[in-house]
Amino acid sequence: MDALAVRVETLRWRGDRLELIDQRALPQRLEYVACSDAAETAAAISAMVVRGAPAIGCAAAFGVALEALRQRDARGPSRDAAFERAFATLQASRPTAVNLFWALARMKSVLSTVRDRDGPEVAAALTAEAQRILAEDLEVNRAMGRHGAELVADGARIMTHCNAGALATAGHGTALGVVRSARDAGKRVSVVANETRPFLQGARLTAWEMLQERIPVTLVTDGMAGHLMSRGKVDIVIVGADRVAANGDVANKIGTYPLAVLAARHGIPFYVAAPLSTVDRAIPDGSGIPIEERDPSEVTGFRGERWAPEGVSVVNPAFDVTPASLVTALITERGVVRAPSRDALRALFD
Amino acid sequence: MDALAVRVETLRWRGDRLELIDQRALPQRLEYVACSDAAETAAAISAMVVRGAPAIGCAAAFGVALEALRQRDARGPSRDAAFERAFATLQASRPTAVNLFWALARMKSVLSTVRDRDGPEVAAALTAEAQRILAEDLEVNRAMGRHGAELVADGARIMTHCNAGALATAGHGTALGVVRSARDAGKRVSVVANETRPFLQGARLTAWEMLQERIPVTLVTDGMAGHLMSRGKVDIVIVGADRVAANGDVANKIGTYPLAVLAARHGIPFYVAAPLSTVDRAIPDGSGIPIEERDPSEVTGFRGERWAPEGVSVVNPAFDVTPASLVTALITERGVVRAPSRDALRALFD
Repeated sequence: MDALAVRVETLRWRGDRLELIDQRALPQRLEYVACSDAAETAAAISAMVVRGAPAIGCAAAFGVALEALRQRDARGPSRDAAFERAFATLQASRPTAVNLFWALARMKSVLSTVRDRDGPEVAAALTAEAQRILAEDLEVNRAMGRHGAELVADGARIMTHCNAGALATAGHGTALGVVRSARDAGKRVSVVANETRPFLQGARLTAWEMLQERIPVTLVTDGMAGHLMSRGKVDIVIVGADRVAANGDVANKIGTYPLAVLAARHGIPFYVAAPLSTVDRAIPDGSGIPIEERDPSEVTGFRGERWAPEGVSVVNPAFDVTPASLVTALITERGVVRAPSRDALRALFD
Repeated sequence: MDALAVRVETLRWRGDRLELIDQRALPQRLEYVACSDAAETAAAISAMVVRGAPAIGCAAAFGVALEALRQRDARGPSRDAAFERAFATLQASRPTAVNLFWALARMKSVLSTVRDRDGPEVAAALTAEAQRILAEDLEVNRAMGRHGAELVADGARIMTHCNAGALATAGHGTALGVVRSARDAGKRVSVVANETRPFLQGARLTAWEMLQERIPVTLVTDGMAGHLMSRGKVDIVIVGADRVAANGDVANKIGTYPLAVLAARHGIPFYVAAPLSTVDRAIPDGSGIPIEERDPSEVTGFRGERWAPEGVSVVNPAFDVTPASLVTALITERGVVRAPSRDALRALFD
């Protein structure tokens, strides 16, 4: 199956440019934006042309590859400086999803091994690494899907938040990858998609992905989750993650933490599907995860339509932190970690 | 102070018509819609030209008065039938807010005492009763405000949901009435307004009311409440109610229940400000409160802008139920009821 991952490529490498589905325009228009250098790639990440922690990581890797192609004829300090600028620009594009920094670290490591080579060789090495990151992400998502599908009962009504699907990754998806894999394993599943204000990734992206896959999907506003849970309409919750701290605390799209609190109250399993590249072992717990504050205009309206009065103050934190104690299990490519803890996560990496 | 209640009248009786602020157009446009009979009034309630439990009650009362004016020259069975139709139409306009049925019951009771009189006398009696309901609501809100203000500390950061303000009532407001009264008592208060999807009463109406009053207000999306509470940015939560069951369970705008659950987790007082007319002693607990299901188009977009994909399923419950156990206190015109229960509510009425 996996029809969408075949038909729609979130990131498309064209040899001299990176093409990204413009996720701001979905589902009304399916359009690609082309990035020709690191700065354009960073701008696309900042503006949320591409979003979703794993997809951001892949995009940033190709941003470095594009810089290498630009520097094909350069050498020495000027090339080094150009790479430094490219890394800095990409690193500053968004602060919360750790996959961005993880992917850039991989690219930097490859660069260090070919630093003395000619431009074309450097470009080839970095392009190959970016392509590996992309291919591995798809594989990792499929592995997570297989592990996670075992947690999904036949007939499960699965609530999800934001979009942790093919559009957030190299394909298949993390949370929605589990949904896809469960369906592919013959389970009848349905999805409740929280619309996920302010950027409406649930209403626009998750609803669209599920419709493409013919997986039944019901759209609700974020405030309806508690009502549905209290009326017994939700069997499990599965979300993705932007950064998992060493103790299992999870930063994910704003609005995730209330779902975890409500799920706990109603005895509903709360699962987080995230690859190891999302785990930041350098941060002891969720309090250390930087939370991006985005532009007020995202809250005062949508797509140029403004509904809030002029002069109102706004805060717009893009993520919140769910304590590990509320996470029933973490679904990774290496298996399912029940009741995630510092020790359990350490064991996963060893 | 109370500048808004003076400047802006949510409902305006003009002797032969009821003028209502069109709350769909706020804050971009301040316009009035005129209703000349019961059917137009019922349509205005259904379409949410006017909303908020107390305001709906007042509007419905004037709907009956308008019918009486139309029937001024009629008598006997034809007049009785016209009133029956008017009551039925108004009663069917919205199902959850009990103030609608409470106000109609008051009008019906007055009608029964003047049923044998001439049309002008009937019209005068019903118009006078509608005006009493309106005037009493304003008084009741001010009394609630005085009682509630004692619960508000100087400097309190008050989260509210939907709009339980002057626009939801005859003036002053229930939850926002407490905020106004606290400010008028010299307390420095600020408001965090949840935008309240899908109809965005928080973003459009509460933000606008507070700006009019120069009370500091910060707008957030509904999913941000948990994050703000977890970071210690909210001191108390105050909301209104559409129906309070005999045991203290509270039906209010969808998204209220998650706030109560989150407030309990963070040790934040959760207050409900509601007049006795909102208490439905005939319903033992919240499970018996009918929850209105509204049109899917409210969820798939806003004001004609659609962002969800075609073909997606939607549910759109307009209210949820917060169990009494999560309500720190009920603020009424007769005083503050801490830990509301069947006995405590019964005592309030006796």
